[in-house]
Amino acid sequence: MNNVILKTAYRLLNHGPTVLITSAHNGKRNTMAAAWVCALDFDPPKITAVIDRKTYTRELMEAEGTFAINIPCVAQLDMVRKVGTTTGRDFADTDKFAKFGIETFAAQHITAPLVSGCVGWLECRIIPEPHIQSSYDLFVAEVVAAYADERVFSDGRWHFEGYDDLRTIHHVASGEFFVSGVAVKSAI
Amino acid sequence: MNNVILKTAYRLLNHGPTVLITSAHNGKRNTMAAAWVCALDFDPPKITAVIDRKTYTRELMEAEGTFAINIPCVAQLDMVRKVGTTTGRDFADTDKFAKFGIETFAAQHITAPLVSGCVGWLECRIIPEPHIQSSYDLFVAEVVAAYADERVFSDGRWHFEGYDDLRTIHHVASGEFFVSGVAVKSAI
Repeated sequence: MNNVILKTAYRLLNHGPTVLITSAHNGKRNTMAAAWVCALDFDPPKITAVIDRKTYTRELMEAEGTFAINIPCVAQLDMVRKVGTTTGRDFADTDKFAKFGIETFAAQHITAPLVSGCVGWLECRIIPEPHIQSSYDLFVAEVVAAYADERVFSDGRWHFEGYDDLRTIHHVASGEFFVSGVAVKSAI
Repeated sequence: MNNVILKTAYRLLNHGPTVLITSAHNGKRNTMAAAWVCALDFDPPKITAVIDRKTYTRELMEAEGTFAINIPCVAQLDMVRKVGTTTGRDFADTDKFAKFGIETFAAQHITAPLVSGCVGWLECRIIPEPHIQSSYDLFVAEVVAAYADERVFSDGRWHFEGYDDLRTIHHVASGEFFVSGVAVKSAI
């Protein structure tokens, strides 16, 4: 795992991967899958994330003011689907991490856990924008730290050749995903 | 080309393709490439788009109040790169479409031209949100019509098997793109 230079952190999201959002507050933690997360600015890096108001992840992230974006890979497909089709509110005495055997490690600047086995991570601090949060479930956040698996992301770009199990996934519908495919370069 | 049922229009963008934004106003028209376009809501469908304040595309779309999202395919790679690395302001007597030989056809509800050879199209009406437009270059829009190439998108989902030239592209950096890859399905 390598630090990603902050001004290139947008590159982690540029190709549109489906992600896991994690959040934690007062000893409670949760995670959900999200396809609607997007880069917003370069330096300082900002992102947008659409997080439904009914989600437990949102309750914790709004209370704490921070959250993490974890970029899963194709080896984690079933876990992503489990996380994306259940609510942490249903697990009274445990949480999704324990329930589904999801290992985590500590973030540097925020309380949200980071999911082991992912290929990229962004620690995010919410920039309060109450109107769009309440009108559209749309959050703006500053990325305060970012990391990536150096086997597939270095010098500010993804390179999955030789690591097919670490390719990012892109949700189509109903549990079907496209895997990030071959790299092509324009002639210009 | 098929109409896409509006409540499934978000599926055109769910997997994170790089797109072309088109806009037109008072007889002028332009297009730019954009990677930071994202679904925002299902029904009525809404999207977000990050459009730099310096772009000519934005000048025209703000004046008109509408714009289109065109989803290009790998066969159009060089055209996307040309469009993404030039400004329409440099073409005094012509425009990017004429300069680069880009064919278009008329939209149904808006003035922006739609780019021929793309695999998906969304006609968008800006929902004015002056604060986030000026603070973040972030636009919210409602999708008023959507279409797709029926060879690769039908019944609300992409299916590229047998049409490798029509696969969507996802910008990595500096003219390198990932092509949408194989479809995988979770076991859950």
